Amino acid sequence: MKHIIKPAEGKLGILLPGLGAVATTLIAGVESVKKGLSEPVGSLTQMGTIRLGKRTENRKPKIKDFVPLAGLNDIVWGGWDVYSDNVYEAATKAAVLERHHIEAVKEELEKIVPMKAAFDRSYAKNLDGTHVKTGTRYELAQQLMEDITNFKEQNGLDRVVIVWCASTEVYNEPIDIHNSLEAFEEALKNDDKRIAPSMLYAYAALKLGVPFANGAPNLTVDIPAMVELAKQTQTPIAGKDFKTGQTLMKTILAPGLAIRALGVKGWFSTNILGNRDGLVLDDPENFKTKEVSKESVLTDILNAQDSPELYGDLFHKIRINYYPPHGDNKESWDNIDIFGWLGYKMQIKINFLCRDSILAAPIVLDLALFSDFAKRAGMSGIQEWLSFYLKSPQTAPGLPAENDVFKQLIKLENTLRYLMGEDLITHLGLDYYEELVESNY
Amino acid sequence: MKHIIKPAEGKLGILLPGLGAVATTLIAGVESVKKGLSEPVGSLTQMGTIRLGKRTENRKPKIKDFVPLAGLNDIVWGGWDVYSDNVYEAATKAAVLERHHIEAVKEELEKIVPMKAAFDRSYAKNLDGTHVKTGTRYELAQQLMEDITNFKEQNGLDRVVIVWCASTEVYNEPIDIHNSLEAFEEALKNDDKRIAPSMLYAYAALKLGVPFANGAPNLTVDIPAMVELAKQTQTPIAGKDFKTGQTLMKTILAPGLAIRALGVKGWFSTNILGNRDGLVLDDPENFKTKEVSKESVLTDILNAQDSPELYGDLFHKIRINYYPPHGDNKESWDNIDIFGWLGYKMQIKINFLCRDSILAAPIVLDLALFSDFAKRAGMSGIQEWLSFYLKSPQTAPGLPAENDVFKQLIKLENTLRYLMGEDLITHLGLDYYEELVESNY
Amino acid sequence: MKHIIKPAEGKLGILLPGLGAVATTLIAGVESVKKGLSEPVGSLTQMGTIRLGKRTENRKPKIKDFVPLAGLNDIVWGGWDVYSDNVYEAATKAAVLERHHIEAVKEELEKIVPMKAAFDRSYAKNLDGTHVKTGTRYELAQQLMEDITNFKEQNGLDRVVIVWCASTEVYNEPIDIHNSLEAFEEALKNDDKRIAPSMLYAYAALKLGVPFANGAPNLTVDIPAMVELAKQTQTPIAGKDFKTGQTLMKTILAPGLAIRALGVKGWFSTNILGNRDGLVLDDPENFKTKEVSKESVLTDILNAQDSPELYGDLFHKIRINYYPPHGDNKESWDNIDIFGWLGYKMQIKINFLCRDSILAAPIVLDLALFSDFAKRAGMSGIQEWLSFYLKSPQTAPGLPAENDVFKQLIKLENTLRYLMGEDLITHLGLDYYEELVESNY
Amino acid sequence: MKHIIKPAEGKLGILLPGLGAVATTLIAGVESVKKGLSEPVGSLTQMGTIRLGKRTENRKPKIKDFVPLAGLNDIVWGGWDVYSDNVYEAATKAAVLERHHIEAVKEELEKIVPMKAAFDRSYAKNLDGTHVKTGTRYELAQQLMEDITNFKEQNGLDRVVIVWCASTEVYNEPIDIHNSLEAFEEALKNDDKRIAPSMLYAYAALKLGVPFANGAPNLTVDIPAMVELAKQTQTPIAGKDFKTGQTLMKTILAPGLAIRALGVKGWFSTNILGNRDGLVLDDPENFKTKEVSKESVLTDILNAQDSPELYGDLFHKIRINYYPPHGDNKESWDNIDIFGWLGYKMQIKINFLCRDSILAAPIVLDLALFSDFAKRAGMSGIQEWLSFYLKSPQTAPGLPAENDVFKQLIKLENTLRYLMGEDLITHLGLDYYEELVESNY
Repeated sequence: MKHIIKPAEGKLGILLPGLGAVATTLIAGVESVKKGLSEPVGSLTQMGTIRLGKRTENRKPKIKDFVPLAGLNDIVWGGWDVYSDNVYEAATKAAVLERHHIEAVKEELEKIVPMKAAFDRSYAKNLDGTHVKTGTRYELAQQLMEDITNFKEQNGLDRVVIVWCASTEVYNEPIDIHNSLEAFEEALKNDDKRIAPSMLYAYAALKLGVPFANGAPNLTVDIPAMVELAKQTQTPIAGKDFKTGQTLMKTILAPGLAIRALGVKGWFSTNILGNRDGLVLDDPENFKTKEVSKESVLTDILNAQDSPELYGDLFHKIRINYYPPHGDNKESWDNIDIFGWLGYKMQIKINFLCRDSILAAPIVLDLALFSDFAKRAGMSGIQEWLSFYLKSPQTAPGLPAENDVFKQLIKLENTLRYLMGEDLITHLGLDYYEELVESNY
Repeated sequence: MKHIIKPAEGKLGILLPGLGAVATTLIAGVESVKKGLSEPVGSLTQMGTIRLGKRTENRKPKIKDFVPLAGLNDIVWGGWDVYSDNVYEAATKAAVLERHHIEAVKEELEKIVPMKAAFDRSYAKNLDGTHVKTGTRYELAQQLMEDITNFKEQNGLDRVVIVWCASTEVYNEPIDIHNSLEAFEEALKNDDKRIAPSMLYAYAALKLGVPFANGAPNLTVDIPAMVELAKQTQTPIAGKDFKTGQTLMKTILAPGLAIRALGVKGWFSTNILGNRDGLVLDDPENFKTKEVSKESVLTDILNAQDSPELYGDLFHKIRINYYPPHGDNKESWDNIDIFGWLGYKMQIKINFLCRDSILAAPIVLDLALFSDFAKRAGMSGIQEWLSFYLKSPQTAPGLPAENDVFKQLIKLENTLRYLMGEDLITHLGLDYYEELVESNY
Repeated sequence: MKHIIKPAEGKLGILLPGLGAVATTLIAGVESVKKGLSEPVGSLTQMGTIRLGKRTENRKPKIKDFVPLAGLNDIVWGGWDVYSDNVYEAATKAAVLERHHIEAVKEELEKIVPMKAAFDRSYAKNLDGTHVKTGTRYELAQQLMEDITNFKEQNGLDRVVIVWCASTEVYNEPIDIHNSLEAFEEALKNDDKRIAPSMLYAYAALKLGVPFANGAPNLTVDIPAMVELAKQTQTPIAGKDFKTGQTLMKTILAPGLAIRALGVKGWFSTNILGNRDGLVLDDPENFKTKEVSKESVLTDILNAQDSPELYGDLFHKIRINYYPPHGDNKESWDNIDIFGWLGYKMQIKINFLCRDSILAAPIVLDLALFSDFAKRAGMSGIQEWLSFYLKSPQTAPGLPAENDVFKQLIKLENTLRYLMGEDLITHLGLDYYEELVESNY
Repeated sequence: MKHIIKPAEGKLGILLPGLGAVATTLIAGVESVKKGLSEPVGSLTQMGTIRLGKRTENRKPKIKDFVPLAGLNDIVWGGWDVYSDNVYEAATKAAVLERHHIEAVKEELEKIVPMKAAFDRSYAKNLDGTHVKTGTRYELAQQLMEDITNFKEQNGLDRVVIVWCASTEVYNEPIDIHNSLEAFEEALKNDDKRIAPSMLYAYAALKLGVPFANGAPNLTVDIPAMVELAKQTQTPIAGKDFKTGQTLMKTILAPGLAIRALGVKGWFSTNILGNRDGLVLDDPENFKTKEVSKESVLTDILNAQDSPELYGDLFHKIRINYYPPHGDNKESWDNIDIFGWLGYKMQIKINFLCRDSILAAPIVLDLALFSDFAKRAGMSGIQEWLSFYLKSPQTAPGLPAENDVFKQLIKLENTLRYLMGEDLITHLGLDYYEELVESNY
């Protein structure tokens, strides 16, 4: 039975808080793809296929041909930033893309000018931008809602989604003011500085029924108040922290060790990067937010409670180093101390010469398109099936997160199959062999 | 509904053609575990857990507590080899395990003496053993059947299984004599040298209804004649080539790239190892058998037909180098040239300091115990659900193999759940959120 | 006392057999440097400094300011190739340099058109160029001499030097026809195919008193006949095989292990590269020439005769793999098994993401300028002080080569100091401390 | 002319402040070597050879056969520690050596019991030992002198040397009380806590004319007061910081890049180790001492002043991470961003799986034997020729240190040749070729 999904008619606005390396790489890339100059590699919605039915049916449509998503030509870009550079200027400074890629879409990029950001420097000390709004927390939230409404009207949009692409904020744990919508709104009125700027964007979005996905490890929508608001306004939310680079590798490799019942004694991960993200994370308070997000991944996949003999002694250490010579070309090195049969030791070393924004950009696109799809499918609140893209997935209260990227994908794919009325896939496949003697039952 | 499975009563004989590094590491290990001196790390049947029911139920028994498998204390070992060393001597020469691990089970190992092998040096030129049977192909097969029958009787065994642990044979493609049981038995009578020695073991086993799993990349049971025989005698078979080391890493990492729609342009894999396996593979004809097995893995996971933009240009090269300084401590180095958003290039380098036999030993154990379990569950012919352990999985004719190790695990786990009457797991999990408005349907 | 050296007046012709990746990278680079667009990094003659006198004097001129070398503006380029592309076209195809670097000197490069090569495909099977001379070996040598003479006259040159930049020829050992100038010239007249094409260039050069340096591992000038001719015509020669990439790293690292008396048990070196050099070396016969050159390096530095306890068991294996995805971006991976105190094992892994031609180009420049300098300084025959640049240094008969790159540099520097009348440096430096009591003597 | 050197008669006491991993590995090793069970690999004095005369003479004696050093059988061990374990117990806890290596010399090791240490926890917060002396700084120095004198008498020793093997102290810069012997002794009397514990050992040693070498990066003997005292009592001193592991690799590799005029833009070095040294360095103040010592190395070898185009922008970052799973098996990973011809970028990655104490132990032995030799040769004060073993070499005031390990070796070897009346080696070697025409002069 197929679920009822509203068609993707009209234009879709994608608003991005933070028009830095990731956002500009995304926007320039989509514009380049629209002109037929490049391929949107890394985007599941654009390039990925999905198996339907039995293996022997050989049905593997592209996801975008299977599910009614907004088309790239229907996207309109906007955003906020603490620097006033337009997207052409910002992309040039970010220096992720080569000159010729940026120049080819210069006209399109120049038109996109950031709105003033709702910013509080105590949440990101290493940033010095001045293109910022003024006012109390409450006033800032109101201004953001106006920004969204104006953006929608001025561009004649049918729908809008927001994906947080700005820097990591300093570490915070959920406290009383986050625990209910009422408490949150009360704090907002009191201009409570414990409300992080990112929460203002999330609040403004959800109030207007605009889906919100969070690409940084800040709490943002991962507090009861926001979940409550999301349900109230029938709005999908997803978070948190884009899963790229080293953590992506971890959620690929760690399940591979776990399924083979190989033990892990130590996992040392270091990163060197020289972009603005690296600069922000050079501050210990901001790093802590990231660290917590990165660490939880292993704790879940290599489960010490279920398998104390294998993972009870795991020592996990993560380092991020600001290293200007590499720019956006983040590089990670992992040393993994594993043990096998009778406890014999082995080692795995992984050196990933990656590109941070190149890996993140297609994730933003997918989160935007899937969030919009979820809204049209009548889904609201936490979208756990999007945890495939996220380092630290938000789940229902008390529900353990699934960090294994392969299980996350099955969840995503089976969700799509379910909504589109296709059979779920279990990989059982015993019927190909007919070897089960009936009388055995 | 639970399937009917005969209980694992009595003793289980495990017969191993090839009592070299892998087999002796397995035997010494199990004996060590039985004495409480070590843990059978890497063995899913012994250490692995399986999730049952919903995530919130938190049911995760050990597999051996969920499925009726033979216990370690019920195992009796035997085997064949071209060298006459008993298992204590062979383990000492193999030098995989440290001195103290071998000495602690010396008494048990010394008792296990190889039977003479059915060997033909034209299938493994770099081996010079002389502990071999004589006779025509037909006579050799008869002798092997006698060996199996005697072993069972003399040890008072209830059941026997065989796992091929000997060297890789030279490359061969299936020809007419492999195409039907009749043609095979005709060739056998004619002493046709195109019947590989490994096929004689498989034939002898299947004739007697003894499950046979193949740990090398030789054809062996992967020919129509053997499948026919297996069905005839209601015997499970599984093949081929233990998935360890570099290929294991490949089937972990490659799916991780594919699910993210990242492109792969080149994959260079080199190995250095100094054990007998390395010596045999130093011969180009034997290496070819291995190469074909190793190469197919990527072709399947990174599917050029489905995603020509991502995998159409993939250049894949594999090298194995005999390097005595490392002994059994196989080491692999992979360079993977990937590309992401707009085609931007990135690189992954993996250096795996592994131990070949340490990774293989628990696989032999699991294949033996699961094959015996399959027999008792009334399953026969190809056991695709055991492809989790194999580099080059044997499937039903025309059915594409599944090489993604994560899908292979789901297949294995859902097979166990199915046989034991538990719900299959789909990772859908939308019910935790209740967010689907009923009227939407 | 200062040696008498003729000044570097007038123009210097540099003729390069083989206008491929290395040569075109050199030429485009020098032209770019002349326009002030780039720096000649990697060239000792252009960027290097030399310490003179005592440490406390702090005298460290650039080498080009210390020794009278030809200036870059006085260089005129020429060469031969089996393909007829001009240097602009060849540089474009080689794809070593980025587009903008080549375009900036397009005009200069287009003017340089190769003369037809003296070629014999049985010496390089994987090359298929047809821009070749015809005739007997003798006639080819005569034609090459005419080429050189014409090039000198037409360009109004004062001096000419030749550096072999073409591919590696198939493996050959010195035989009777190489043993004396008389035997060589007799063989030449007989059109003896055992005379390699590269020897024809060397012969033509030396006959005309033109210095010749050999950048490939072929014998070429490393035979008694050529040494005899060089002495006769007062011409410097140098060879063989440019020391770049992995071997450079080896001659840096191996001395470092040796001076600390650390043992080495195994050294595995693999390379992946996708340029024409990689294609030629994919042929086993050509690879052998390279292998011999690469292997001798370690044998000399890690001396098993002097230190059998440390290097007596060294297993050294080198592999070169043709891997198109990398193009000219050669990459090497080394695993080195070392041992220290009481024999405890340690490992070093080196992954060098290098660029073959980028490392080779400045070596060609230095060899050309130093060879010309040597000629003007009245030096002739083997120039061992240039072994700093070479994998397999040519020495006087019976004299063991020095492969340690640091000792090679001291030899080079002390040669320059000696010729320029400066004190040789011994690094003794006890005089800074005056601690030696006179009466002790 | 040969220098007069007193013979190595009688017994030599080697006293080691800090009987931890390094010292116990040294002692157990020498005892093992004395019994013929192991080789003293890594020790230049025991295993190294030295070339004498011309290359063609082929004279390469072992250093210990060339220079009159104390023999291993004449060594008597002693030391101080903040823990009271005897050397057998301490070696067992350090777990550097395998069980059987320690057991084989158990009897010898048990006899060596530490004297109480002169300790001040504010100099090493992460250490909690209580086997310590009490008293003012002055009294502690007196007690140490008594310890040395008693040790010498009770063991009937001819000579004693001291090598500092204890932990790194917190960072300190030289101040007024270090500037002259007078000021230092005044401070001593005033119980000035700015005198580091290590200085008390050095003072006690030098007062008694006992040579002192410093294996940690603390100031210790690297202050004018100690140099003054050393000259006064005719005593050799050497410092500071044993050059092992990553820094050894740096002083091997960096000169290799510099001599080829290759640029370096970034050098990132990370270390993971789990021994007591790692624990002490986990404190930022102690790490700083180490960091300063490690950083200076590159600044000197890759000289930005001499070659601003190549090294002016070098970004150098060093990290040390406490990582218990590795124990004493320190592992380093370096990423080096270099550039060549026209500025093209290349990368070198080095992964060194080393063993900290295995590399350090032979250095302690060599420093001890060479310091004793220097004393007998009438040398006093700073022994710069021993900088070969040290990360941060102490030199005469105003004299720039030489950090290139290859130049350091030449200095060491030429010092030995000089003292033994052999020709210094310059590697000129032009005489092998006779190619210089006399009339050219």
